[in-house]
Amino acid sequence: MSKKLNIGLFGFGVVGQGLYDIIKTKHLNLEIIKFVIKDATKERSLPQHLFSTDKNSILQNPEINTVVELINDSDAAFEIVSAAIKAGKNVVSANKKMIAQHLAELIDLLHQYGTSLLYEGAVCGSIPIIRNLEEYYDNELLYSISGIFNGSSNYILSKGFNDGLDYASALKQAQDLGFAETDPTMDVDGFDAKFKLVIAAYHAYGIVVKPEEVFNLGIANLAVQDIQYAKEKDLKIKLVPFAKKLNDKQVCMYVLPRFINRNELLYNVDYEYNGVIVQAAFADQQFFYGKGAGGHPTGSAVLSDITALRYDYHYEYKKAAETDHLQFTNDVELTVYLRYNQEELVDALQFEHVAERFYSESFKFITGKIKLINLIAQEHRISADKAFIAVTNPVSPR
Amino acid sequence: MSKKLNIGLFGFGVVGQGLYDIIKTKHLNLEIIKFVIKDATKERSLPQHLFSTDKNSILQNPEINTVVELINDSDAAFEIVSAAIKAGKNVVSANKKMIAQHLAELIDLLHQYGTSLLYEGAVCGSIPIIRNLEEYYDNELLYSISGIFNGSSNYILSKGFNDGLDYASALKQAQDLGFAETDPTMDVDGFDAKFKLVIAAYHAYGIVVKPEEVFNLGIANLAVQDIQYAKEKDLKIKLVPFAKKLNDKQVCMYVLPRFINRNELLYNVDYEYNGVIVQAAFADQQFFYGKGAGGHPTGSAVLSDITALRYDYHYEYKKAAETDHLQFTNDVELTVYLRYNQEELVDALQFEHVAERFYSESFKFITGKIKLINLIAQEHRISADKAFIAVTNPVSPR
Repeated sequence: MSKKLNIGLFGFGVVGQGLYDIIKTKHLNLEIIKFVIKDATKERSLPQHLFSTDKNSILQNPEINTVVELINDSDAAFEIVSAAIKAGKNVVSANKKMIAQHLAELIDLLHQYGTSLLYEGAVCGSIPIIRNLEEYYDNELLYSISGIFNGSSNYILSKGFNDGLDYASALKQAQDLGFAETDPTMDVDGFDAKFKLVIAAYHAYGIVVKPEEVFNLGIANLAVQDIQYAKEKDLKIKLVPFAKKLNDKQVCMYVLPRFINRNELLYNVDYEYNGVIVQAAFADQQFFYGKGAGGHPTGSAVLSDITALRYDYHYEYKKAAETDHLQFTNDVELTVYLRYNQEELVDALQFEHVAERFYSESFKFITGKIKLINLIAQEHRISADKAFIAVTNPVSPR
Repeated sequence: MSKKLNIGLFGFGVVGQGLYDIIKTKHLNLEIIKFVIKDATKERSLPQHLFSTDKNSILQNPEINTVVELINDSDAAFEIVSAAIKAGKNVVSANKKMIAQHLAELIDLLHQYGTSLLYEGAVCGSIPIIRNLEEYYDNELLYSISGIFNGSSNYILSKGFNDGLDYASALKQAQDLGFAETDPTMDVDGFDAKFKLVIAAYHAYGIVVKPEEVFNLGIANLAVQDIQYAKEKDLKIKLVPFAKKLNDKQVCMYVLPRFINRNELLYNVDYEYNGVIVQAAFADQQFFYGKGAGGHPTGSAVLSDITALRYDYHYEYKKAAETDHLQFTNDVELTVYLRYNQEELVDALQFEHVAERFYSESFKFITGKIKLINLIAQEHRISADKAFIAVTNPVSPR
């Protein structure tokens, strides 16, 4: 029935080790026959002859029919993955940055070489969101996709809201626990969530959007005043990637902090957990929850992809095939809370409508309606001001 | 690429109509060419020649390659589905009772005739739990599956807890809104949830368990005292089907009311919504949430099955193929709350350990550890006493 997989694995870090842990407990008709790693001197738990630093020991090995790519460097990952596809090997990757940045090229390569590339582990760890968008919501009209896609930033926010830690202490703790990188930019500024959103949106709407077109603003400027403001209103702040079909022609997408009330599904998605909300025309609101990162949860997603390759499973990208010329747009209005320092910032952002203003010695905020393109245009000023923005209404009614 | 489906549809009720609504908005390479209904005299929104009361107008029609069965009568449904399989047609059904009761026979037929039977719509409406168990958790060691599988009983409980309605008024309202049948036994006594549990357990553990072997006790005896008791402890009561792998040899399953605290995922699954928690070794805790019933949510699940048949998708029942001789058992201990009237019931149930007892003129309860087999043996006595039982700890540690 199933095809025997001989696997070449790039990278033997947390996820690679997690994957290996899972595989060795199973009888799955698959075998990792070569590991390519960066550091040849590092002590390994497996026999030395299985390891190599030469990528061609996998890519040019005719015995290997399946490549699993679990390295951090997205440029090197793209080289490896595209070479593997060209060599006719099926590929599993968990590299969201690489996939989001090279989506169009990768899909072209897959069509050209007829191989399969699966990447469930790249989007929200253990949550099978890509598979479900691809297989189960393939005929559904999807209104929107949103959620909590980044465990590190969510851990920091949860520590702030549930345990009273300030941003810097929470970040430090996340780093100590291995939930956040030494350079946390990708996580806390929303890049990581954006890459995942771009990938999910392709499966949901069939549109390829370059990550640099999508606005992301993170939680690095979160201050105690913001947390206090939210708590007084019984709200939490979450970093929420959001994609919405506005009409028959347009999809908007962005990553921004958002206020979440107690009745919303995302309210209880805390710490390293992720949650994905799919709003569909017929299935209505659907919610998926699980661990967003870590060796075993992500390893389990990677393994699901690997074992699907035993049956030559491949994404069909049905939405892309059926797409009715959807365009990506940033031409939307949001209702936001802005905590700021300099009045110049407020002027520059050109609020369409102001709902509230508050001034005190230590804390100034304004809430109201604003054009997303103005946020994009003033991104550097927002950053320079150390201002914090959170969405109160994701897309204004038209 | 995909195969054109000519569909014969049995039943044109809420789900059938929902399915039809969805299909007509799409270009899906499929067509419903015949509807078989019970009542020929009923006014229909479609041309009369599409309807028939003769099942053979579908079953013996060589043009029809796909049968969709959406009728209520489970005996008639089994006749139709088994005849369709024998006629070499692929089948989609949403009939949980029929599938749970005839699981072994159906699987034998599928093997024998090489056709496909899909039934995502039978288990938790819009939530793709069967597909995920089948496709995504196929290599996962699953510790347990639990959740809220029945929208009618959950609606009644939510009305009690959130809106202060007593059981009878909440049931009446659910019936008026079409969430509960005139005879609500299947829903409120946990049979419906049990059928779904039996089906899910087959995909999760590969074991066929007859519904009558699985204990179910529902919420029909819920009293205001029970709600008050729970509320004082900031708990809700939910009707929770539960399957757990106890060890390498045994799986236990039952459906019982359970106390749920504010931090549990099921706490906010209210009204007609369903939720499924999968506890897995590597993916860890996973949660799926969505509408459990209704024409459009269930119609959307049925449509996902139908469109998968365009690619000849069929369940592989991998867990059943790999099963290491798992056995079903009722030999477990639970910790429960029992609100009762007659002391004889407490004596008969033979608590292993008593944690608390409370007496007042209007309200007597006992909490403690009890053998599931004693609950099963005393089921009639529990019913006669109008006692209410809710689990506080689903399986005692061993």
